[in-house]
Amino acid sequence: MEKLEKKIPRNLNECFNIDDIEKLAITKLSKHSLAYYYGGSGDEITLRRNRNIFNKIKLYPKVLVNVSETDTSIIIQNRKLAMPIFFAPAAMHRLACPSGEKDSAKAAFEMNTLYCLSTHSSCTPSEVAAANKNGLRWYQLYLNKNRDISKKVILKLEELGYSAIVLTVDAPVAGYRERDHRARIGEEELSDSASIIANFGFFKNIQDSSFEWEIIDWLKSITKLEIYIKGIHRVDDALIAREKGVKGIFVGNHGGRQLDTVPSALEMLIPIAKACKDFKDFDIFLDGGIRRGVDVFKALAFGAKAVFIGRPLLWGLACGGEQGVKRVFEILMSEFITCMKLCGVNKLEEINESYIFKEKLPKF
Amino acid sequence: MEKLEKKIPRNLNECFNIDDIEKLAITKLSKHSLAYYYGGSGDEITLRRNRNIFNKIKLYPKVLVNVSETDTSIIIQNRKLAMPIFFAPAAMHRLACPSGEKDSAKAAFEMNTLYCLSTHSSCTPSEVAAANKNGLRWYQLYLNKNRDISKKVILKLEELGYSAIVLTVDAPVAGYRERDHRARIGEEELSDSASIIANFGFFKNIQDSSFEWEIIDWLKSITKLEIYIKGIHRVDDALIAREKGVKGIFVGNHGGRQLDTVPSALEMLIPIAKACKDFKDFDIFLDGGIRRGVDVFKALAFGAKAVFIGRPLLWGLACGGEQGVKRVFEILMSEFITCMKLCGVNKLEEINESYIFKEKLPKF
Amino acid sequence: MEKLEKKIPRNLNECFNIDDIEKLAITKLSKHSLAYYYGGSGDEITLRRNRNIFNKIKLYPKVLVNVSETDTSIIIQNRKLAMPIFFAPAAMHRLACPSGEKDSAKAAFEMNTLYCLSTHSSCTPSEVAAANKNGLRWYQLYLNKNRDISKKVILKLEELGYSAIVLTVDAPVAGYRERDHRARIGEEELSDSASIIANFGFFKNIQDSSFEWEIIDWLKSITKLEIYIKGIHRVDDALIAREKGVKGIFVGNHGGRQLDTVPSALEMLIPIAKACKDFKDFDIFLDGGIRRGVDVFKALAFGAKAVFIGRPLLWGLACGGEQGVKRVFEILMSEFITCMKLCGVNKLEEINESYIFKEKLPKF
Amino acid sequence: MEKLEKKIPRNLNECFNIDDIEKLAITKLSKHSLAYYYGGSGDEITLRRNRNIFNKIKLYPKVLVNVSETDTSIIIQNRKLAMPIFFAPAAMHRLACPSGEKDSAKAAFEMNTLYCLSTHSSCTPSEVAAANKNGLRWYQLYLNKNRDISKKVILKLEELGYSAIVLTVDAPVAGYRERDHRARIGEEELSDSASIIANFGFFKNIQDSSFEWEIIDWLKSITKLEIYIKGIHRVDDALIAREKGVKGIFVGNHGGRQLDTVPSALEMLIPIAKACKDFKDFDIFLDGGIRRGVDVFKALAFGAKAVFIGRPLLWGLACGGEQGVKRVFEILMSEFITCMKLCGVNKLEEINESYIFKEKLPKF
Repeated sequence: MEKLEKKIPRNLNECFNIDDIEKLAITKLSKHSLAYYYGGSGDEITLRRNRNIFNKIKLYPKVLVNVSETDTSIIIQNRKLAMPIFFAPAAMHRLACPSGEKDSAKAAFEMNTLYCLSTHSSCTPSEVAAANKNGLRWYQLYLNKNRDISKKVILKLEELGYSAIVLTVDAPVAGYRERDHRARIGEEELSDSASIIANFGFFKNIQDSSFEWEIIDWLKSITKLEIYIKGIHRVDDALIAREKGVKGIFVGNHGGRQLDTVPSALEMLIPIAKACKDFKDFDIFLDGGIRRGVDVFKALAFGAKAVFIGRPLLWGLACGGEQGVKRVFEILMSEFITCMKLCGVNKLEEINESYIFKEKLPKF
Repeated sequence: MEKLEKKIPRNLNECFNIDDIEKLAITKLSKHSLAYYYGGSGDEITLRRNRNIFNKIKLYPKVLVNVSETDTSIIIQNRKLAMPIFFAPAAMHRLACPSGEKDSAKAAFEMNTLYCLSTHSSCTPSEVAAANKNGLRWYQLYLNKNRDISKKVILKLEELGYSAIVLTVDAPVAGYRERDHRARIGEEELSDSASIIANFGFFKNIQDSSFEWEIIDWLKSITKLEIYIKGIHRVDDALIAREKGVKGIFVGNHGGRQLDTVPSALEMLIPIAKACKDFKDFDIFLDGGIRRGVDVFKALAFGAKAVFIGRPLLWGLACGGEQGVKRVFEILMSEFITCMKLCGVNKLEEINESYIFKEKLPKF
Repeated sequence: MEKLEKKIPRNLNECFNIDDIEKLAITKLSKHSLAYYYGGSGDEITLRRNRNIFNKIKLYPKVLVNVSETDTSIIIQNRKLAMPIFFAPAAMHRLACPSGEKDSAKAAFEMNTLYCLSTHSSCTPSEVAAANKNGLRWYQLYLNKNRDISKKVILKLEELGYSAIVLTVDAPVAGYRERDHRARIGEEELSDSASIIANFGFFKNIQDSSFEWEIIDWLKSITKLEIYIKGIHRVDDALIAREKGVKGIFVGNHGGRQLDTVPSALEMLIPIAKACKDFKDFDIFLDGGIRRGVDVFKALAFGAKAVFIGRPLLWGLACGGEQGVKRVFEILMSEFITCMKLCGVNKLEEINESYIFKEKLPKF
Repeated sequence: MEKLEKKIPRNLNECFNIDDIEKLAITKLSKHSLAYYYGGSGDEITLRRNRNIFNKIKLYPKVLVNVSETDTSIIIQNRKLAMPIFFAPAAMHRLACPSGEKDSAKAAFEMNTLYCLSTHSSCTPSEVAAANKNGLRWYQLYLNKNRDISKKVILKLEELGYSAIVLTVDAPVAGYRERDHRARIGEEELSDSASIIANFGFFKNIQDSSFEWEIIDWLKSITKLEIYIKGIHRVDDALIAREKGVKGIFVGNHGGRQLDTVPSALEMLIPIAKACKDFKDFDIFLDGGIRRGVDVFKALAFGAKAVFIGRPLLWGLACGGEQGVKRVFEILMSEFITCMKLCGVNKLEEINESYIFKEKLPKF
């Protein structure tokens, strides 16, 4: 049945979906960079679960609806963006291509979508701001043991036009990602990319593992930027976050990179979105596992306002820098529009759980 | 354990079931034609689900019933047909064999079963009518943006003796079938079959994505032909269809070729048939996933009046033109009769859910 | 991990369980004989299900019970047999070894267990009676269209000391076993074993597919032998059988050889045994899927009086004639005793559902 | 995708988790020793289930908890141990390395954890006591048919400073572990390790299969050492054990080595821990399937006081003697601490079922 097998693509033109781009990226990245981006913690059960859960959820399309006018735009912080598909923070884009975050931020701007920069970026916030022009951009913050350093960073971000702080809370210590260690087996000296990753590990040591919910009060006391929390897993924590007055939460598990065997991002989203469905002005984003336009639709159906994409954009970056990132956004956007039309939906607001198949079937 | 492995059949005589015929067809078809027929959209999850669901459903046979006289005949539009297994519309049969729809329509006539021609056929409705003689034949309609063109087609069909219009409603836009694109990788010029498929893509652009339920009123105003709707997924849409006065519906998902991750045809059939079980004179057909006689029995047990078969007949056509198509019907018919007898059933009307195993078991 | 792989055994001494014996038998049998014994109907889903269901059921052993005296004996027709593991009827043992049923019947006698001869045996009932000496033996009957022939057979059986008639009711027509046909691909002339199997097919044509429950009355009118029905799938049919006054039923699906996708024998047994649990003097046997001593225990726990074994004994016969059959009985018996002891059970009567794990667990 | 594959480690430095150490150990052990340690009974269904169940359970981490001070210490018999991860009794450590139990007991002492010696050890209790210094050590007892022998052993153990007797109750007869037999295929003479294993089999014949619950009274009459029961599977047996006044139970299935197809250790633990949750001073240990720090956390969340580890420590012993054993403890301890921190937990007492994801999801 060789006639039916997929080949590994040789270039972006031979990539028709995100999996193709991943396969191409694997051929492009150095051993260390690949291990760093690709890997999850432990046995990567959560990493796979993030992805597989989407395939189990069944859409339930309505027919004979006029779908000639489909609109994927979304308003965030009074800005109209092209789609509910945003750039998740991820460390060290330079492992993927020489211009790193400058390329990815430029692509996000050109696609008119939100860009979220990582504390562990390999370009400076200023460089990124310049590349992203007047795009909407947020900053993901790992809190420093020295609060003054974090404060200075935040004030600088305000100056540079970043419009929100995304505080990561699921990494008081680093998850153990075995691929990083495996990639170094048998090496005497660190290669360039290995050395970047190793230094990054060192950098983590200054991260704080002691802060609690009061940190939100402190953040609000030093900045007017909107505050999001990234890494909420539980319904009760989501309710506390709301209570504490943050603008919203990222529901996710750090891309399966922190604690293995936690639920998939979508499994966590479902009860959280249900518990929060009457809150106005509290945004719930899904962060993890999206590889298809139908996945975006499902996340929104279960109550996410929008989704953040991580690895797929890094694969795009590795395959073709700015152009590769744009290609990933284009594929997801195009698939998402097709999904909306085939479900009989024209606007994001119309997407809800009635488009998920839940009819009772006999037990087979 | 090589001794126990199946070999790929070398000809129709070595084919004992539909899977064999599929395997043989794979060896016969051009790369482009195979990709076109074989493929589903996205990750082909729905395509596989259409098929796999049948294997999970357990029959519950009664014994010590006289099954010496088994009758598979069915009345459709006052015509007595040989079996509840009909020819589903599918585009461009010429990709499978030179005479295309002429061969397949002749085979359907000789097997005394219903033939449904596609808007995207590669022979004209007149040629097909001639080959199908006084067979019962329907026409699957994609609505043209220019209603006059559709109207002309319908009037012509009346003249040619087609007896129903099957309006496809699950394709306001085309699903993205990646195999078609992959099959063209690295080609400078389109081969014959690739060129047919590509032109077909062009043709789709004149299809309408704006019509809604009112279209049924319009169709009824221009023709007395009976109207069926093809591509119903939801219970509520089935009820509207009935309300709108159509003669019946095809429950299916376009063979897994439109929106990936929708439920299998059978999963959608079960709640729809239940909701419609008291309606007289409203036909529910299952369209998708049938590969065995037991599958036909299961579809009827859950409330389908009959089933439509797509890919298996195209595989037959590819393997042996008219003879290949007949072979597929013969295999399915023979398996279906065996299933009826071994379940203790002699007539289609006797087939119902009491022949599905639903006894409560402890949770294992 | 080659160090951990199982090798295919080269002789009976290298066989430690039934799977080993199956693997060895595969190397011994002719292509046609193997296809005939091994195969099920259709996609062999029921064939695999018969087996796999046992692995899903969890035992629930009691500890600190004195198990120094374990007794596996069972009384059938006032005869004390060594174990509740009987020889199921199966056609044409000569495909497995030259002495055919003479060898298998002798082994059953020597193991002091019940032997059930098939209508389609390759030795005569007289030969078998001689080999089986004063063993307990039954006769599986396919009813002939010509009732007089069946009657003569039955009277002869009485004379020969057979003590029960086992009427097969799940084969009004033959299931379609594709392996038989596949095994003949490319052959001009039939080999010896192929020819036996083909003639056997012919023989089937004289089998009756019209008889109903009244046949039991007829059987009772011509013989005093006890009557069992083989091939009951449903609870309602089990209740009718009891009503009709037969001595018991074989719950099974003809070894997955008749209608594919029916439930496993054990899944059918569970509700039937439950519905019949208050009937005295009505025997329920499980027929299908047993490969381990724990399977025997599970069948008895769910209400079977004893189990019938088919293919494993044929594998034994193929591996070593009478000795091979005895080896299969010895393995199953030894495993069954170990299971009883480790569950804390000393007699068959103590085996019940309390030894099946049914504790409620959170949904994982 | 070779770039993403794991290699088999060549030494302990290339081992990043327990699976790595297992892989390395496979390369180190003799065929017979590997078969002995690795194998389970029957089809090894329970063996695999012991492990796989853990991967299905989803953690549910709390965030924004100060986890800068995490304490894994546990008090057992008034001794403060470093972690709730103990050394399970296992036969014949000398199959893994020349110093056998002397090495493993020394490692346990140095890691400050509990060591449980097997009746079938390959070093004497005195040698082990010397190596284990003032470590906390228990003794697993197989009862001898000759009670006097058992009594003498117990008195000697008291003298040597062992502080508890762990009576094994799930082995009145030995499970049938086919790998042991398979490993000997084709050998004329027994190798050293094969000979040890075979003699061990002989030794088993003096084990008693007749004792019942009264044995506890006898044990209490001859020793003041605390008594634990190892091999409890059922809720009712757990309640009897408590009634009989033992100090606690090991819930497990002998590492999948006795009766195949019993539930995993964790599945048995859940209902037992629930039934016993109000008992003070009655310890429930989980014995079987732990390979990751998250597994330890899950066992404790469902009510285990601590866990016993078997095979992983033997793999460590095979890879590097005392150092290998310590490496296994270090990996598990480090993973467990990370799990506690990432769940937002600082002390063992805080670990409970609220950290297991049980939110209701729609049925997919």
